[in-house]
Amino acid sequence: MKNILIFIVTAMTLMSFQASVLQAQYGGNEIVSPEIHEDNTVTFRVQAPGAEEVKLRGDWMPAEGWVPGSVAMERDENGLWAYTTAVLEPELYGYAFLIDGVSTNDPNNVFVSRDIATNTNILLLEGEQADLYRVMDVPHGTVTRTWYNSPGLNMSRRITIYTPPGYESARSSYPVLYLLHGAGGDEEAWNELGRASQIMDNLIAQGKAEPMIVVMPNGNVSQQAAPGEGKRGYYKPQFMETGTMDGTFEATFLDIVKFVEDNYRVKAKKKNRAVAGLSMGGFHSLHISRYYPNTFDYVGLFSAAILPNQNTTSEVYKNIDATLKIQKENGYELYWIGIGKADFLYNNIVNYKEKLDAMGMPNTYRESEGGHIWKNWRIYLSEFAPQLFRQ
Amino acid sequence: MKNILIFIVTAMTLMSFQASVLQAQYGGNEIVSPEIHEDNTVTFRVQAPGAEEVKLRGDWMPAEGWVPGSVAMERDENGLWAYTTAVLEPELYGYAFLIDGVSTNDPNNVFVSRDIATNTNILLLEGEQADLYRVMDVPHGTVTRTWYNSPGLNMSRRITIYTPPGYESARSSYPVLYLLHGAGGDEEAWNELGRASQIMDNLIAQGKAEPMIVVMPNGNVSQQAAPGEGKRGYYKPQFMETGTMDGTFEATFLDIVKFVEDNYRVKAKKKNRAVAGLSMGGFHSLHISRYYPNTFDYVGLFSAAILPNQNTTSEVYKNIDATLKIQKENGYELYWIGIGKADFLYNNIVNYKEKLDAMGMPNTYRESEGGHIWKNWRIYLSEFAPQLFRQ
Repeated sequence: MKNILIFIVTAMTLMSFQASVLQAQYGGNEIVSPEIHEDNTVTFRVQAPGAEEVKLRGDWMPAEGWVPGSVAMERDENGLWAYTTAVLEPELYGYAFLIDGVSTNDPNNVFVSRDIATNTNILLLEGEQADLYRVMDVPHGTVTRTWYNSPGLNMSRRITIYTPPGYESARSSYPVLYLLHGAGGDEEAWNELGRASQIMDNLIAQGKAEPMIVVMPNGNVSQQAAPGEGKRGYYKPQFMETGTMDGTFEATFLDIVKFVEDNYRVKAKKKNRAVAGLSMGGFHSLHISRYYPNTFDYVGLFSAAILPNQNTTSEVYKNIDATLKIQKENGYELYWIGIGKADFLYNNIVNYKEKLDAMGMPNTYRESEGGHIWKNWRIYLSEFAPQLFRQ
Repeated sequence: MKNILIFIVTAMTLMSFQASVLQAQYGGNEIVSPEIHEDNTVTFRVQAPGAEEVKLRGDWMPAEGWVPGSVAMERDENGLWAYTTAVLEPELYGYAFLIDGVSTNDPNNVFVSRDIATNTNILLLEGEQADLYRVMDVPHGTVTRTWYNSPGLNMSRRITIYTPPGYESARSSYPVLYLLHGAGGDEEAWNELGRASQIMDNLIAQGKAEPMIVVMPNGNVSQQAAPGEGKRGYYKPQFMETGTMDGTFEATFLDIVKFVEDNYRVKAKKKNRAVAGLSMGGFHSLHISRYYPNTFDYVGLFSAAILPNQNTTSEVYKNIDATLKIQKENGYELYWIGIGKADFLYNNIVNYKEKLDAMGMPNTYRESEGGHIWKNWRIYLSEFAPQLFRQ
């Protein structure tokens, strides 16, 4: 015994340490919430013995104005509040509790997504479309957060880059999809809320999409990085940053393309480049693709925020029709437009599509149910990516 | 006007859309919490008009058993609860609200860190040691989440890798620090809670550490990836996974080294390798470094969980003294041991250090204030990394 390490406590010490912490944190009981049942009903639970009223707010319920609907939960004799839903469709959902009117995360569900200044609990019901959003037993790509120099913005900026499975060991080069977020988003949005890496892993594994690099930059030119990830430190994120949609992002976009083409093994021709985005990112994609009219063979506008730019004098927004005409004459493979029927931008998109038709610009138009929401943008990416780089 | 795009709504629509969402989310007012004042006092605020009692729990307060202490907040006539601290030292802190006994995140602070199954709000007071944890105006490394194949575990596993600034454009090779998490942690822990990438960026920029690659694997052999990031999907994370500390991680560790040395530009000699870890990861580092006794010139044990392994029959834990002796004879540059005076493992570490001394194994021993907490592990990394790869 002298020849082995002298130990004082047993492994059980660590275990009981943890048990104490858990008891302190969870009030001595182990609540399961959310509990997804076999029939795709879901039970939510929260311990709140002192509360007068507890509600569940979930984005599968009809909206109340701009926020998801809510429903009252029921209290048992121990102060545990619970609610079981009707059968839910497979989807990635968000929810919160309203405890005496205060919006609260579920203390028994550590999984949250940040959208602007709010963390929302998430849950995923498997099957159908939602299986594209899961980490499946398939080869996985790599997700890199790195920094590029933007001479145009005189700034070092953070960027998220997905490389497909096998990129590290392969010698071949890959096409690139530039995937742009909306106002309020940043270089984290598509990967976190949009499940871009899961969608790409699964589409590639199923043979439905070509292996490609997906570049997710930060479209807010005043912002170095996502909130908390830059030198500004921690602050309360806002919906629209200074300088958003004033032409600067489009005018400096080639800084990003150059960084990617200098540092990754990419096929660097027009036929190997796609640009797509949601909301503000759709607006950016529209303008980037016509401002550099011989650069992208694939364009995706997902619920694009097609708005006038009355407050900008940027060169980017001048001669729009002339540059669209050049883009048309140069030719492209796909100009894809997706919009939800309930989206507040619906009429704008219909008008823009009609304008393209009148100009003789071929486009693929897709209407979905619902509004200006991530559910639609995940679906649009899932439908758009398989159409890229096919020849 | 015919020649420009037809637009229907103005940019103000997007702005007022957002204003409505914010009003719905925040109850029509913009609360600032936490508010860090010039003198390093901090005011916390939360709107909870229906609550009977609201407390603030913060990890700068004396602990109450295993959890941080708490203090009552004061209610104003509108149901806004507030509390202002005394002057706080520069540090990265965690806190929560207790609203009528229910632990709640701050709805006005979106920044949280996950530790096992809990999200805790964080705030950072600048200055001194804490400046190493901030994103400063210095060149930044790249943080990659990728997947490696472990033949020993017959599993594809997720891993976090920091490459130093300039790695992409340089042609040189780099030394490697393998940095291991504790029980309950995973491949996210060192980068998120431990601020590893910020610490390395800042130390390298100050010339205090050599540029190096930092490899942060998942030390739970039953786990493919951090909770939510693997095919198991979303579940309630636990403190200790099956197969933790049974020798399997050590026995399959060279799968990780091989992956790194095959896929990154690394200097692949003993003098270019370090292994260090906290708690369980310190235990792993102890055993990995003597089980492969001619592989690492630098070893760091941060609050190492030096415990007996009575329930394991792994070959890894046999002949401990004999392999330590071989490690000693092979020679090494640094065997660094850090422990907090209030750590429940304090006596174990003192005994282990005395054992090393008795064996004639040189070591560097560092006692800090406090216990088994991330504050200490960030300090230990900040002190350990500058001592690596200096010749």
